[in-house]
Amino acid sequence: MPKLILVRHGQSQWNLENRFTGWWDVDLTEKGVEEAKEAGRLMREKGVLPTIAFTSLQTRAIKTLHLALEEAGRLWIPEIKDWRLNERHYGGLTGLDKQAMRDKHGDEKVHVWRRSFDVPPPEMEPGSEFDPGADERYAEIDVPYTESLKLTIERVLPYWESDILPVLARGETVIISAHGNSLRALVKHLSNISDDDITGLEIPTGQPIVYDFDDTMVPGERYYLKDS
Amino acid sequence: MPKLILVRHGQSQWNLENRFTGWWDVDLTEKGVEEAKEAGRLMREKGVLPTIAFTSLQTRAIKTLHLALEEAGRLWIPEIKDWRLNERHYGGLTGLDKQAMRDKHGDEKVHVWRRSFDVPPPEMEPGSEFDPGADERYAEIDVPYTESLKLTIERVLPYWESDILPVLARGETVIISAHGNSLRALVKHLSNISDDDITGLEIPTGQPIVYDFDDTMVPGERYYLKDS
Repeated sequence: MPKLILVRHGQSQWNLENRFTGWWDVDLTEKGVEEAKEAGRLMREKGVLPTIAFTSLQTRAIKTLHLALEEAGRLWIPEIKDWRLNERHYGGLTGLDKQAMRDKHGDEKVHVWRRSFDVPPPEMEPGSEFDPGADERYAEIDVPYTESLKLTIERVLPYWESDILPVLARGETVIISAHGNSLRALVKHLSNISDDDITGLEIPTGQPIVYDFDDTMVPGERYYLKDS
Repeated sequence: MPKLILVRHGQSQWNLENRFTGWWDVDLTEKGVEEAKEAGRLMREKGVLPTIAFTSLQTRAIKTLHLALEEAGRLWIPEIKDWRLNERHYGGLTGLDKQAMRDKHGDEKVHVWRRSFDVPPPEMEPGSEFDPGADERYAEIDVPYTESLKLTIERVLPYWESDILPVLARGETVIISAHGNSLRALVKHLSNISDDDITGLEIPTGQPIVYDFDDTMVPGERYYLKDS
């Protein structure tokens, strides 16, 4: 039966520094590397072995995938990368320390930007040192200037429907290695979570979340692989 | 203009132990890891940056690719894996120490098996502990029992023609991370090397080889990236 494994990348350098990351391409920390490997060991121990992988265009998700697959003995499975699994684009907040933002704009505004469903942060300014727009990997797409969670969902779900769901429906065990908000988009859809509730749902780093699908492609309750 | 980069995986555990490896899935040594990273640093320094990657289903080639791409800042490029880029299948020699083989069968016979163009080694025995036939990654293909270099070429070149050449012709910079004999197959074809001469051509580990193509897809002379 089809099985879906969601993994949020392990701790990144900017998670550690408490900075808004979004589309900026930071690396994993040593702890993040260990989290990724642990996710792979868990898959091997539980015998939940992916047959095909999807990930974003961002190093921290790709490395998490590779480290986990290597531990699971599965580096050889097909791997598809797509920008639509990227993290939410944090616009003008990208690169800023979360505490500095709070000091500058006040807790409330930052909380709204981070947690509201449909209010995007201020747009990234042209020429910002953290603008990924000039990156060759995004040459063929219209890089957003900022995204709310709602806007993130509006690019994740069409990709899910068009590219991932048909593969899953073949009976594959699909792993998606992605980001806090691109995974929120999927969990919201699959677990039918309201706009209000999804913004408060935390997806832990490096902790595989599993959905089992029935033969009509209805997902069951999500669970942590470690608890199975 | 289209550019092709060939990289033979870095030193593997069985390269180090001087054992016939073929389709057995051994890992890189520490030295092999360093060779792979160095290949990536060289690509970055020379500004020869792949836009799409092909590799085999074998861990040592996939890891070499990932380590090199990470150093080159290119983990995000598309990556396609196919068994037809696998190492030559060494049949019944798989897993054996090369010196033990020489002691048992004589230098001459081993030399013929290793270096003749079209004489395959003895077939792998059913139930051999080194038989990759039961490995899930090969579930949908007819795993060979043994291969000469000629037989290896007969599966590498059709894949080159059908899957890699059309991508290259789009103007991409293609990297192929593969193995001594699957790369010999390509070099023989692209540099028009005779059956007699190809068996003596050594492809060094972790050393990127480059072909530049003209707009009629004729390859120029091959060169080492380090010498460019």
